Formats: sequence, C-alpha cells, structure tokens
Amino acid sequence: MFRNQYDQDMLTWSPQGRLHQVEYAMEAVKQGSTVVACGNKKCAVLAALKRKQSKLSSMQEKIFAINTRVGVAVSGLSTDGAKLVKLLREESTREEFVYGRSACPGRLAAAASKSLQISMRKSSGRPCGVGLVLVGSSEQLGCQIFQTCPSGEVHQMSCTAIGGRSQSARTYLEKNMEALETASVDEMIMIALRALNESNVDASDLTSDKCEVAIVELNTYTLKSAAEVTTLLTNL
Amino acid sequence: MFRNQYDQDMLTWSPQGRLHQVEYAMEAVKQGSTVVACGNKKCAVLAALKRKQSKLSSMQEKIFAINTRVGVAVSGLSTDGAKLVKLLREESTREEFVYGRSACPGRLAAAASKSLQISMRKSSGRPCGVGLVLVGSSEQLGCQIFQTCPSGEVHQMSCTAIGGRSQSARTYLEKNMEALETASVDEMIMIALRALNESNVDASDLTSDKCEVAIVELNTYTLKSAAEVTTLLTNL
Amino acid sequence: MFRNQYDQDMLTWSPQGRLHQVEYAMEAVKQGSTVVACGNKKCAVLAALKRKQSKLSSMQEKIFAINTRVGVAVSGLSTDGAKLVKLLREESTREEFVYGRSACPGRLAAAASKSLQISMRKSSGRPCGVGLVLVGSSEQLGCQIFQTCPSGEVHQMSCTAIGGRSQSARTYLEKNMEALETASVDEMIMIALRALNESNVDASDLTSDKCEVAIVELNTYTLKSAAEVTTLLTNL
Amino acid sequence: MFRNQYDQDMLTWSPQGRLHQVEYAMEAVKQGSTVVACGNKKCAVLAALKRKQSKLSSMQEKIFAINTRVGVAVSGLSTDGAKLVKLLREESTREEFVYGRSACPGRLAAAASKSLQISMRKSSGRPCGVGLVLVGSSEQLGCQIFQTCPSGEVHQMSCTAIGGRSQSARTYLEKNMEALETASVDEMIMIALRALNESNVDASDLTSDKCEVAIVELNTYTLKSAAEVTTLLTNL
Amino acid sequence: MFRNQYDQDMLTWSPQGRLHQVEYAMEAVKQGSTVVACGNKKCAVLAALKRKQSKLSSMQEKIFAINTRVGVAVSGLSTDGAKLVKLLREESTREEFVYGRSACPGRLAAAASKSLQISMRKSSGRPCGVGLVLVGSSEQLGCQIFQTCPSGEVHQMSCTAIGGRSQSARTYLEKNMEALETASVDEMIMIALRALNESNVDASDLTSDKCEVAIVELNTYTLKSAAEVTTLLTNL
Amino acid sequence: MFRNQYDQDMLTWSPQGRLHQVEYAMEAVKQGSTVVACGNKKCAVLAALKRKQSKLSSMQEKIFAINTRVGVAVSGLSTDGAKLVKLLREESTREEFVYGRSACPGRLAAAASKSLQISMRKSSGRPCGVGLVLVGSSEQLGCQIFQTCPSGEVHQMSCTAIGGRSQSARTYLEKNMEALETASVDEMIMIALRALNESNVDASDLTSDKCEVAIVELNTYTLKSAAEVTTLLTNL
Amino acid sequence: MFRNQYDQDMLTWSPQGRLHQVEYAMEAVKQGSTVVACGNKKCAVLAALKRKQSKLSSMQEKIFAINTRVGVAVSGLSTDGAKLVKLLREESTREEFVYGRSACPGRLAAAASKSLQISMRKSSGRPCGVGLVLVGSSEQLGCQIFQTCPSGEVHQMSCTAIGGRSQSARTYLEKNMEALETASVDEMIMIALRALNESNVDASDLTSDKCEVAIVELNTYTLKSAAEVTTLLTNL
Repeated sequence: MFRNQYDQDMLTWSPQGRLHQVEYAMEAVKQGSTVVACGNKKCAVLAALKRKQSKLSSMQEKIFAINTRVGVAVSGLSTDGAKLVKLLREESTREEFVYGRSACPGRLAAAASKSLQISMRKSSGRPCGVGLVLVGSSEQLGCQIFQTCPSGEVHQMSCTAIGGRSQSARTYLEKNMEALETASVDEMIMIALRALNESNVDASDLTSDKCEVAIVELNTYTLKSAAEVTTLLTNL
Repeated sequence: MFRNQYDQDMLTWSPQGRLHQVEYAMEAVKQGSTVVACGNKKCAVLAALKRKQSKLSSMQEKIFAINTRVGVAVSGLSTDGAKLVKLLREESTREEFVYGRSACPGRLAAAASKSLQISMRKSSGRPCGVGLVLVGSSEQLGCQIFQTCPSGEVHQMSCTAIGGRSQSARTYLEKNMEALETASVDEMIMIALRALNESNVDASDLTSDKCEVAIVELNTYTLKSAAEVTTLLTNL
Repeated sequence: MFRNQYDQDMLTWSPQGRLHQVEYAMEAVKQGSTVVACGNKKCAVLAALKRKQSKLSSMQEKIFAINTRVGVAVSGLSTDGAKLVKLLREESTREEFVYGRSACPGRLAAAASKSLQISMRKSSGRPCGVGLVLVGSSEQLGCQIFQTCPSGEVHQMSCTAIGGRSQSARTYLEKNMEALETASVDEMIMIALRALNESNVDASDLTSDKCEVAIVELNTYTLKSAAEVTTLLTNL
Repeated sequence: MFRNQYDQDMLTWSPQGRLHQVEYAMEAVKQGSTVVACGNKKCAVLAALKRKQSKLSSMQEKIFAINTRVGVAVSGLSTDGAKLVKLLREESTREEFVYGRSACPGRLAAAASKSLQISMRKSSGRPCGVGLVLVGSSEQLGCQIFQTCPSGEVHQMSCTAIGGRSQSARTYLEKNMEALETASVDEMIMIALRALNESNVDASDLTSDKCEVAIVELNTYTLKSAAEVTTLLTNL
Repeated sequence: MFRNQYDQDMLTWSPQGRLHQVEYAMEAVKQGSTVVACGNKKCAVLAALKRKQSKLSSMQEKIFAINTRVGVAVSGLSTDGAKLVKLLREESTREEFVYGRSACPGRLAAAASKSLQISMRKSSGRPCGVGLVLVGSSEQLGCQIFQTCPSGEVHQMSCTAIGGRSQSARTYLEKNMEALETASVDEMIMIALRALNESNVDASDLTSDKCEVAIVELNTYTLKSAAEVTTLLTNL
Repeated sequence: MFRNQYDQDMLTWSPQGRLHQVEYAMEAVKQGSTVVACGNKKCAVLAALKRKQSKLSSMQEKIFAINTRVGVAVSGLSTDGAKLVKLLREESTREEFVYGRSACPGRLAAAASKSLQISMRKSSGRPCGVGLVLVGSSEQLGCQIFQTCPSGEVHQMSCTAIGGRSQSARTYLEKNMEALETASVDEMIMIALRALNESNVDASDLTSDKCEVAIVELNTYTLKSAAEVTTLLTNL
Repeated sequence: MFRNQYDQDMLTWSPQGRLHQVEYAMEAVKQGSTVVACGNKKCAVLAALKRKQSKLSSMQEKIFAINTRVGVAVSGLSTDGAKLVKLLREESTREEFVYGRSACPGRLAAAASKSLQISMRKSSGRPCGVGLVLVGSSEQLGCQIFQTCPSGEVHQMSCTAIGGRSQSARTYLEKNMEALETASVDEMIMIALRALNESNVDASDLTSDKCEVAIVELNTYTLKSAAEVTTLLTNL
C-alpha cells in the first residue's frame, strides 16, 4: 500500500512522481454541484446547478460576477471558493484602478492559478478543494472560457463541465462541439441547459430554482433572472 | 480503516476529497443545546434551550444581542462561541462607527464565515466546534435567518434548528413551512416554541427557566424577559 | 481504541466531536484539594482544604485575595493556578487604575476564561490543569460565585465544590440549597464548613491548620485568621 | 524495505547516499509531454508535443520565449514550470535593465539551477517536478542547448529529449549526432521533428495542432506559427 | 501501556490528568547528591554532600551564596542548577539595585518557580531536572527554608532533605522536629549533620572533604570553611 | 535494527555516539566522479575524471579556479558542490578586497569546513553530499592540498583521491609517496594521471575529453587545455 | 525496550530521569583520540595522541593555544571541537580587550560549559559530541586543569584522561597521584607521556609524529616542537 505513505501531505512525491494530496483535493471538486460552460468567439454561456443544504435553506449561489465582462462559477468546497472569488474581485479592481480597463478572463485565470499554486506549496496549508470556470470577453480575443483545478493548472476550453455527475454533461458537449462554433446566443443557451440537464439527478425537473445561467457577449456579462431562466427552461 | 490516516488534522484531504477534522467539529455542534429559528420577511423568532451544567449552577445564556437589529444563538463548544460573538460585536461596532448604520445580518454572517474559514486553514489551529444562527433585519431585505457551520459555510434559511436532538424540531418546521410564510409575530413564536419543544428531552415541561426567546421585527430586536416567556409558554 | 488516536493534542477533534486533552486536564482538577463555595445575594463563603506536601512542609495556601471585594480559590496544578492568580490581580489593578473601581467577579471570571481559552488553542501549549472558584460582590448584583474549568467555560453558581472528593460536598450542598437562599453570614459559614467536612478524608478532624475560610459581604472580602477559623470549627 | 524509511522528505539521505524525493520528482518529468532539442553552433531547434487535457480544452503551450534570443520548453508539473518561466523572464529583464543586453542561455540555466537547488534544500518545500530545455544564442558562444533536472543539475547538450516516451527520440538523436554538426536550419528542423515523431503515441498523425517548433539562429529566436508548422510537417 | 503514549512531551496530559515528563524530571533530582536543611525563626542550617566525578577530580560545590542573607543548595542535573543559580543572583542584584535591599528568600523562591514553570510550558524545552533548597532570612519573617521541584511548585519547609538516599535524612528530621523549634545554632548544625550522615553511603566517614555547611542567622549567611566543618564533624 | 531509529536526521546521536546521516552523505561522495591530487612543497597537481550524463550531453567540469593561486575539484552531488564553489569564490574575493592578497588554500578549506559544519547542525537542513579537494600555494607554506568531507572535517594531505572507485588511485599513490616528495612538475603530472587511470572504468582509454588537469606552482594556478591534456596523455 | 522511546531527542526525560541523547554524545567522546593532563599548582602538562585519517594525510592537531596562559586539547567530533576552540579564543580576546588581562582557565571552562548547555537545550540542535581538557594558570590560583563533557558539566581535575582507550591512562594516573603533587616540570612530563603511552594502541612506538605535548607553568603556556617531543620520548 504505497498510497498510505506518500499521501499525508502535498510536499511529498510518490515514487511514481505524483502528489497524492493534490489528487485528493480534485475529488472534492467532483463532489461539488455541476457547472457547465460553452461558447464561441461571439458568445459564451455559464450554467450551474444550485444546491440546497436542506429543505429549509434557500439555494446557494454558484455563479459570481467578477467585473462587467467576466463571471465565474464555483464547484467544490464552498468556503475555499469564496476566498478565490474575493481574490479575483480584488485583482480585477486593482487592474481597473491601474490601467482603467476591466481585467480580461485570461488575466484573472492566471491570478487564480498563482494563488492555487502558492497554497499547494506552503507547508502549513492544503490544496484548495475547488474548481473554477471563468467565462468572459476581451476586446482582442472575444469570448473565452477558462477552467482551473486544485493543482493550479489552467486550461482554456471551448466548452467544459465540472463537479458531481459532470461526465454526462461533458459527453453531451463533445457530441455537439461542431454546433457550438456557429451557435447564436440562444442556441448556445439551449446547448448549455441541455448539457446541465444531463447531469441533473432527476433529469425531468430542471427549474429556475435549481439553476443559474449567465451570458457573456462582447463586452457584456449578464446573469439571467429567475423569470428569464424559467422562460429559457420552458423552451427546452 | 482509511479514516485513521486522514483525520488527524484539517490540512489533509482524504482520498475521497473530504476533510475529516471539519466533519468531527460538526459533531461538537450536535452535542450543543437546541436552537430553533423561523421567520418570514416581516418577523423572525429565535428560540434556544438553556442548559445547566449541574443543579448548583445558574443557566447559561445561549442567545446574544449583536446590535439593535441582530441577535445570535450559539450551539456547541461554548468558549469557541464566545469568541465568535465577541468578533461579531466588534464587526458591528466598526460598521456603526464607519457608516453610521447597524450591520445587517448578511454582513455579519459573512464576517463569521470568514473567521471560521481562517481558523480552518491555519496549521496551528483547529476548526471551531460551534454553530451560529443569526436572526436580524435589514431595511432592504426585511427579516433574515443565517446559519453557519464549522466549515465556514453560510446558508440563508427560512427556518432552521441546530444542536442536540434538533432533528425533531427540523421535522416539525418542515411540516409547517407554508404556515411560516404568512404567520404573524404571535403565530411565529408559537411555531418556534412548538418546534423547540419537540427537541426537549422531557417534552412536557418547557419552562421559562429552560428557554430563551428573541423576536426580530423590522428594525427591532427584542429578547423576551422570563415573565414574558412564561406567558408565551402557557399559551402553548 | 479511538481514544489513542485523538487524545495526543488539544487541536484534534475526535470523531465524536470531543477534545480529549481538555477532558484530561479536567482530571488534574479532580486531583486538587477540595474547594467549597456557597452564597446568596447578601453574603458568600469560600472554604478550602489546605494541603501539606509532607510532614516537614508548611501548609500551601489555596485562597488568594484579588482585590478588596473578590477572592479566588484554586484547585489542581498549583503552578498553573499561580499564573492565573497573577493574571487576575493584574486585570484588577488595570481596571482600578482606569476606572477607579474594583473589578467585579463577573469581569474577572471572563478574563480568566479568555486566558484559558487562548492556552487551549495555541499549538505550542496545553490546557491549564486548574479550576478556579471566584467569590466576590458588585454593587449592582450583590454577591456572586463563578467557577471556571480548563476548557475556559465559566458558570455562575449558587454554590459549588471542586477538587478531589468534592462529590460528597456537592451532594451536601444540593440538599441545603433552599437554606442557602435566606442564610445569614454565620449560617452560610456553617453550611460551607459542613460541606467541606464531607470531603475531608478523615472527617472528624477538620482543624484551622487544614482549612481556609474567606467571607464576602457587600463590598468586603475577608480572609479569616487561623484563630477565627478555630472558633468557627468549634461551633461546627 | 529501506525505501520506506528514507524517502519521506528530501532532507534525509538514504544509507546508499541517495535523496529519494529528488528521484521521485524526476518521475514527474517523465510524465510530462515530450520535448526535443537539437542544434549546432549556428542554429538550434526546440520542438515540443502539446497536450490536451480533454477533447474540450484547447492545447497547452509548452514553449515560452524568455527574451529575443532564448526560448524554453517545459515538461512535467505545469504549475511548477510556470513558476520557473516567470523567474527566468524576471532574471532576463533584470540583466537587460542593468547591462543593456539579453541574458545568454548559460546565465539563465544557472539561474534556474539555483532556484531548483534552493527549493530542494528548504525544509518546508519540495523539489520542483519539472524539467526545462533552454535553447538560445550568445554572441561569443553561438547557439547552445541547456537542460535542467529537478535536482538543480544543468547539462549543456548537443541535443536532448525529455518527458514521456522520450527514450525513442533520444535513440533517434544519438543515431544522427554526426548529421547535427553540419546541419543547416532546415535540416535541423527535420531532425527535430522526426525525433519528436518517434515519441508521438500515434506516430502517423503529427499535426500543427499537436506540436510547437521554435528556431534559434544567431541573435534571433522565432516561434513558428501553426501554418509554418503545417508546412514543415508536410515536408516530413 | 498508557504510559508510552502520554509521556513523550510535557504538553500532553495523560487520561489521569498527569504530566509524565514533569514526573520523570523529578527522578533526575533523586539521582542528585543529598541536601539537608533545617531551621527555626532564629537560625537555619544548609548541609550538602559533595560529589567527586572520579578519584582524579576535585569535589563539586553544591551550596552557592545568592546574596549576604540567602544561600541555595542544588541537587540533580548540575548544568540546569547552574542556570538557576545564575538567574537567582541576577534577580537578587536587580532587587538590590532598585530597592537598595537584599532579596528575601521568599522572593527568590518565587523567581525560581516562575522560571521553572516557564521552561515547563515551552514546546521547545524540557522541565529542569533539578531541585533547589533556599535558606535565608528576612527582617520581618526571620529565617526561612524554601524548596522547589521541577514542576515549579515551591514549599516553605521547617526542615527538608532532597536528592539521592534522602529518605533516611527526612526520617531523622521528622523524629527531631520538636527539637528544631527551640534549637540554638550549634544544636541546629548537629541535627543537620546527623541527618546528612543518615544519607551518606558509608555512614562512618563523613569528612570535611565530603560535605558543605552553611549557616543562616538574622541578616547573615555564612559558608563554613573546610577547617570549621572538620571541627563540627569531630563534635558529631 | 538500531540503524532504523537513529538515522532519520542528523541531530540524533546513535547509542554508539555516531551521526548516521553524516555517514550516509559520505556515501554520496563515493558515487561522484574520481578526483586525484598529489604534490610537494614546490608543485601540486589536481586531476579529475569528467562525466557525461548521457551520450548527448557535453562533459561536466569538475575542476574550478577559485583565485589565481587556488583550484578546487568537486566530487558528489553537483548542485551542493556548485554552492560551495560559489562560497569559496566569494570568500576569496572578500579577502582580496580587504587585505589585497589571494586567499591561501588553508583559509579557504577552513571556510568550506565552517559552511559544511553549519549545514550539518541546522535542524532544517541536511549535510552536503559533496567532497572537495583544494590545491593551492601560499608564500610561506608552498603548495598545499586540503580535502573536506561532509562532516566538515578538513585534512591536509600529501596526496589524495576521492569519489567513485578512488580506492585504486589511493593504493597507487601510497606506493609512490616517496617519489612525490622530490618529483618535478612533469613527474607529478604523470603520477596524478597514472593514479587517475587506475580508477578509470575502462582503464585503457583515458582521453582529454574525459579528464581535467590543473597545475599549481608557487603563486600560479593553471588549468590545462584539452590539447595540453592530450599531449600529457600520450606521454603516459 | 524503554530505551527506544526516550532517546530520540535531548528534550525528553526517560522514566529514570535520564537524558539519553546526552549520554550518546558522550560515546562520541570515547571514540576520539586520547588526551592526558596532569599537574600541580606550579606546573601542568597536556599530552595528546595525534591521529591520521589515512596514510596519505598529515596528522591532525589536537592541542590548541587559547591565549598566552591557557591551552586546550579536544577529543571527539572534530568539527564540534573546532567550534568550541573558536568560541574560547573569542571569549579570551574579549576579556583581554575589556580587562587588559588573559582569561584564566576557570573563566574559559565556564564559557565552554555555558555554550554546551545551550546547545543541549535548543530543540533544533544536538549535544556537542566533544570533550575538552583545559590547562592553564592564573596568578591567584596557580596551574589548573578543567575538563568538560557534552552535558556541559565542568570538573576541576588534578589529572585526567579522556578519549578512546583512556581508561588505561586514568589507571596509571591514579597510581601516581601522590607523585604529582610534588613533581617538577620534567617529572610531570614523564608522568603524562607514560600515561599517554598506556593508551597507545601499539604501546612501544610513541613517536614525535604521533603525540603533542604542551607545558603550563606560572604565566606561560608552551607547545613543545616536534624535536623537543622526540627528545622527551627518548628520555621515556
């Protein structure tokens, strides 16, 4: 059982050259709620399942605006996520103050990655058990989707799904990758919601209560209201 | 027995992506005294069972006023709770001093969450073994109920019950969720006390000695006196 | 044997949500000498058994004056107790200097609790193995009795007994709780000494050598001299 | 099983005089994507396989420009690599600012080595799980290739291949070492791409999507565009 | 074997509420050379067996003057003792400088206790393996004897014996406690030497080489010279 | 298996009074490449086998000039060696700056020893796995050879050989010790190369590619060029 | 096997009140080379066996002058010894600078003891594995010999022998203790050399190569030259 010896902290390499604690933190992401993102240069959609801790509690938000062009969805340990969202907003404010422009999604993904990498190397810390999906636009590059994982790695994605039961959503997206490239905003929303629905436990009842949808077009980021989401879902 | 290897400190992920020490701290909350809260936009009620260490001691208070609009009930390790109540009062004073207004319950819940999250990440610390239920009102949003847990997660609740034997209270509240939405202050108090009574060991003898009740209406927070509680209990 | 894994330091929760090291420190209090306190609003009495390390040594004092209104008795690891007594005296001096009044017993109990809580959370420390019983008076609230335990918890008591063999004393006090409420100073002393006598190993021979008695009335704290204690004991 | 005792941290020598943690970090390099470099005094080529995390993600870049004369390819844990690339760029900027010239590849390799050596000796760190291949030119020495490994060792190479499945590429290069010495830029590119192809999993389908090529001639560093790479590959 | 788990450092309580490392340090005192002290209000005597490391070495001193009124004898780990003697002399010098008077024995015993308590709580330390016997006089209280142990506890003694084989000396002193109260200086010296002789391995040959004697009378501390000790021993 | 318990860090003595980690670091030296030095008062020679990491890499230098009079050869963990060479050069520069003279080999050996000793005592470090052979001249003492080992010990040698397979070289040198005392520079070189050849794996093919030779005469240090080494080897 | 549990660091007492790591460090002294010292008030002699690491190395010095009146011989881990010799020389220089006189041997022994004691209490250190024998003279006290051990204990000796095989030397010295008291310098040297010879492995061949001799008379310290030692040995 090599596993036992090399997985107690994130500063010890296993004989196979792996950092087990980082891999375990990725498991925490798999227990989070499902997040789906897809897009092309002109538009991108971020959709997330909301979760209720119990029948008595209200839904927890999963999508957060960072600035007027970028939004982020969080999956995994929610307090670790809250810390990163706060960091991204500070980073964005700093950039706005210094350069007079909104931070682009690539810059913010790099900032998140750096913070994750640092918390993965501190002897008195632990890897963050959270995955982020950033969706935003920049003037030069159009709409972009970035995904971070607990190891600090950042990947630019054409579409992605993370969190619990996200495999079904990914399979759906893979099948529709061609459609994405030319999709209009409305088509894009439909693809995102159908992918999200694949990952929903009770696939028939996706309601505006249970999901959040954010739209990114050139220079705009919009979180859909509950009413709008209901309309979208009836179109499904 | 994987459990043995990954539950010695809160900086080690288990292979399943869990932080066991945080889960154990939640057990400490389950050993605390029962706290019940319920409300709607217009009013909210916070009720708690008081505990006696022994026959010789006086009752320990469980509900604390934070400012003129917000009160908090504590369940779990009482010294950890005292630290958080102190923190919330300082936070509230700071807000009052800087902005000239009472801190709203959402702001205070976020402050508690941040403090809990920090003590969960320090290598030389431990997660706080305490759960808080904050009840208060803000001008924009009306009355609100927030609940924190040792992991730093905050949930907004329509009604909730934490602490020892709180399952019975939660079951009672779930059955009466519809009634809550339209309840007047007096009806709300009755619901809260009946829920609390469900969790009382000796269900027949809920006395003013054994429980505390606080009422939140728009812009007011009132802790009921022993005499008032007695009157309320006779109405039960 | 879960015990073995979770009781090595005070920063590790057991799966049941307990902090074993804190519980073990409470055992150290049970090995201390017996301390008894009882009172009502008008008067309170603190009585303690003194201990001899050997036949050759003089008796160790167990009751210490903090200011002109408050005294404290210590049971458990005596060097830990000495540290706390020093802290309480400094706290009291500070209050006297700043506000021109004696610190009331509730304030001092809170100060002791805070210090105990801090030493329970430091990774490079251990919980103090000592219990305190504070007896004092304040103008608003009359005479009060507070008891601290190694976890930092403070309880206001009508009467209490801690230390080795204190169960017998507590049983005696419970039987006489009604008498306490109306007792005069002289009656109160008799109750305290009889309770202390219950916990004395050789119940017949309580001498002025072996016990200390302190009396709190409104605004006064008096430690009885050996001669006075002898007189009191003959009245027993 | 000596291994078990001496491989838990990088500050413990094994009885055979080995540092196991450093050797394990080298395993992480072997899991990276393949990087190939070859050159002579007049020109040098750096070629790398790009990797996709999943079908949904875009390709990760593996070759980074440090200054106008030097480029670096990274294989292994990508976040550790990002840290080193950042360090090399800062080092280069500093040199440019102080001496008014581009840092030569030897200077940069030494800077990377020093950083690797420091992170290998810090008790609260771990060896970086990354290998670098630096290719660049200096006026005095012509084109040069340097390779670092997690232990901080730097080797000047006439040609090299690191990362997963790199053994086949090395074998190909060894066979063609004589050809390298007199190769023109175009021949050099062909050798590099053929070597890279040897390490490609599906040897037939090396596309411009899957590989990056950078050329170093005297005083110039050029990263080939996708179109240029496609042209090169058709020539293969 | 609970012992194994709870005696590795002095910051861990055993389930019985004991600090084993402190108890083990007390064992180091039992391996020291014998020290005897006895006295009444008018005079006190401190006598110690000196030890030779080997036949070749000279005798090690065991009694040290702190100021003109107080002397101290050390038993146990001699380097720990040297540190405490240094501390007591500094404390005494400070008091003399600030208040213009010699530090009384009670003050010095408290200073030693505080230092012992601190080294017992530091995570990066160990309890001192040394016992002190302080003998001195103050104007108000006459001659006094104090004894410290590794836990920092201080006891005022009428007479005492610590170190190896000290039980026999203590038994002798207990039998002669009445005689002590009225003894003159000369009688006191005889009692101390006879008690010391009881603990001597070869009881017949107590020589001036082997023991040190210090006399405290009101305001004076005198270490007897070898010649004087010889005279005293012939009187034995 | 005592070994298991006492060889985990260099701050723990074994019951036999040994520091195992230091001994293990010496094993790392034995895995280095062979270094040979021999000399008399008038001249000294330092010769080292160079190593190739692989067929593709260029040779690693093993002999480094410290100042115009002193050179050093390194065997063992090469990054540890690089750190020490840097330290020696800084030390030399400092001496030149302050006193206006080249540091003599004895001074530099002492500086290396001090650095080695410090890294052997730091709790958060490890002994350096490297052996140095310093060869140089001072005006008073003529040519001198010093050798350091990981424990910080420095030995002045008439001749020495360290690194892998160095035993054969040492045996050859021992047989020729008399010849050394009167040898001219040319004879000395031949002795050094023959000794080095004894440790060469494939004894027949010592080429200028594979070895470095440095000559120290009064006030001069010269590293032989590849051409010169080839000439020397043909003379062999 | 209690030993296993309590000998891992020097801050843990064994149940018998022993510090095992300190005892193990004493074993390192027993592996050092033999040092002999003997003297009376008028003169003292320090003699040490020198050791060769190998046939190729020159002899290591074992006797070091501290100032014009005091010399010290070192046995055990030589790098630890070098650190202490440096410390003693600094201490001596400081005293000369401040008071204008050579530090006497007692003062220097105390300084060494303090340094040893500190390195025995630091959690991040280890006891020094070295024994010192200091020989020197002061105007008031004549010639003196002091011996330190790793625990920091200092003993004044009439004569002593430490290091490997020193038991035979000690036995010889014990037999000749009477002769020492009246010995002239020449007789003292003969006694020291004969004692040293007892500990020599090959008892017949004590040569000037293999031993060092230093003489202390009132106010003078002289290290004998090789020629003088040869003369002395022929007189043996």
